[in-house]
Amino acid sequence: MNPILVLGGGPAGLSATAELASLGAPTLLVERESYLGGNPKRWHYSLLAPDLRPAEEVMDPLLERVTGRPEVELRLGTTLTKAERTATGFSVALRSADTTVTREVSAVVLATGFDHFDSRRKFEYGYGRYPDVLDFKELEGMIHDDKVLRPSDGRPPKRIAWILCVGSRDVQVGNPWCCRMGCAVSIKQAVEIRQKHPEIDAYVYYMDIRTYGLWEDLYWKSMQEYGVKFIRGRIGQVTVAEGGSRLIATGEDTILSRPTEVPFDMIVLASGMEPGTGTKQAAELFGVPVGPEGFLTPRLSDLNPVDSGIPGVFFAGAATGPKAIPDAVTEGMGAALRAFQYARR
Amino acid sequence: MNPILVLGGGPAGLSATAELASLGAPTLLVERESYLGGNPKRWHYSLLAPDLRPAEEVMDPLLERVTGRPEVELRLGTTLTKAERTATGFSVALRSADTTVTREVSAVVLATGFDHFDSRRKFEYGYGRYPDVLDFKELEGMIHDDKVLRPSDGRPPKRIAWILCVGSRDVQVGNPWCCRMGCAVSIKQAVEIRQKHPEIDAYVYYMDIRTYGLWEDLYWKSMQEYGVKFIRGRIGQVTVAEGGSRLIATGEDTILSRPTEVPFDMIVLASGMEPGTGTKQAAELFGVPVGPEGFLTPRLSDLNPVDSGIPGVFFAGAATGPKAIPDAVTEGMGAALRAFQYARR
Repeated sequence: MNPILVLGGGPAGLSATAELASLGAPTLLVERESYLGGNPKRWHYSLLAPDLRPAEEVMDPLLERVTGRPEVELRLGTTLTKAERTATGFSVALRSADTTVTREVSAVVLATGFDHFDSRRKFEYGYGRYPDVLDFKELEGMIHDDKVLRPSDGRPPKRIAWILCVGSRDVQVGNPWCCRMGCAVSIKQAVEIRQKHPEIDAYVYYMDIRTYGLWEDLYWKSMQEYGVKFIRGRIGQVTVAEGGSRLIATGEDTILSRPTEVPFDMIVLASGMEPGTGTKQAAELFGVPVGPEGFLTPRLSDLNPVDSGIPGVFFAGAATGPKAIPDAVTEGMGAALRAFQYARR
Repeated sequence: MNPILVLGGGPAGLSATAELASLGAPTLLVERESYLGGNPKRWHYSLLAPDLRPAEEVMDPLLERVTGRPEVELRLGTTLTKAERTATGFSVALRSADTTVTREVSAVVLATGFDHFDSRRKFEYGYGRYPDVLDFKELEGMIHDDKVLRPSDGRPPKRIAWILCVGSRDVQVGNPWCCRMGCAVSIKQAVEIRQKHPEIDAYVYYMDIRTYGLWEDLYWKSMQEYGVKFIRGRIGQVTVAEGGSRLIATGEDTILSRPTEVPFDMIVLASGMEPGTGTKQAAELFGVPVGPEGFLTPRLSDLNPVDSGIPGVFFAGAATGPKAIPDAVTEGMGAALRAFQYARR
């Protein structure tokens, strides 16, 4: 059997590769970056919502299951530049540095994932201009090292605000969808900080709190046990106070129905999810339909997200829409099973 | 190989069974009810959120894949009464009517699902006392047959209200978790009704709208294209107006910060999800840990929801927490793969 191609080495792609290998299927794992692990690795995720388990404890077993396995051929720093259907599957061109090789594969799992929204595009929040306005990915590293300090002056902040839905649910920036994990991750960060530094006040500005399913527990705990404060409202602008040492969040409290203008030492932006860099390209190469949001469209989204409807092409993870890690991993299993069945048909 | 036992014939169990059969594994599908299809079948789900595809179009292919297959032994109207670990898997006792048989199985997929919250327990809403207060499961059938009429007098309603989170996010009834689909299903119902009957006004009372991920599109469309109205607030009580022909919803509008008392012709309760009847029993029989909510607890909920951590026991679907159909189906695939690997080890 020609190998099964897994495109993308994040949680979904790692999961698919691990399962294919355990089924004894030769697997070709292609990742454009020079490392495996996807966004969790790239951005040094700290603890994962909702159970506050270290990201390494979740990612390492996945990485272990694909490394050093005879069934798995790993190609890092590699992109796909061509795909043509053949009698037995696809012929694909793989480019790394300035070399291109052609390979025959029997099926394809597209696990091209997501990119975090670039918070600079929401310019009214001052990200990139004000050093104490952070993206929540950056705060992950600070929390991980227990060094939650203002980048501007190295001082510990007294008041931190999280602004949810930055580049999500926002027609203005062209991203009307919800990122599915911004609420839970922000609340988790606020809890982590309040656990270690109860002297820091934590405020979360939200439209709707979407700790769906059993994640709700995290939301309630954050209020009742950790005193995280929630303000329903949309922040329109972040400015710097006279003197320059504090940030001012201006907007509307939609519960009190009044304008709000509150000083903070640090403001954290919960940046949304967009289709991954490789997703659009992969869609074109394999002729996969893409929705208005730019994510890959499963054949029957109401039935399962792994079947593309195109023979030999399967999906896993955030390539089809924002997704938390466990769902991406489960979809990796499903896509592996389907691809295996297709390849050995 | 002894068969793999799949416990539960809803979307997750059907998916697991279909995949096991396609892998050539002998599979024993046990369902306590006299039919397959789980809650979607039991409650005659109409169109599914978010794509408004008829439930049959999603469920029928699943049902087809398990019926008449030589690998699948189907036992309806059957419950599990005993499970003991053996050298090769488990010995289980299956009871149907007054007969009990013992079978050897090599692995187990627990797909015991959920039960809808019994809306009568939220007695202040008058479900079971006022005929025009419906559970949203009942409205599914009415929409399906295009007979949305007041049960009290058979007249078409002019104003319908949906109350979200009935038996969800509610410490009072002991269900603090979120049901994950109440928002989307209610909005979908309001859209379906407004599509066919634009003369009917639709109001949704909510705490947070949780149309997570790409489901957000449904929420915006419901407002912009179908004029569904959203009121942020908690309804405390439903009463009957003097004269008896209209219902009165009393509560607080938390955006306008004022009490609200609004008449409706029909009130629809979005009842939550609770662990399925068989879930607790299955947990006891197989020694599976159960969380404070009563759902089965995966070994690493941050990694994947299908591995129980107990050799030979796997999970799929709402047995581990509220879940939409596509996620349940995908978990069925994952659990099938894991159970297959375990059984043939």
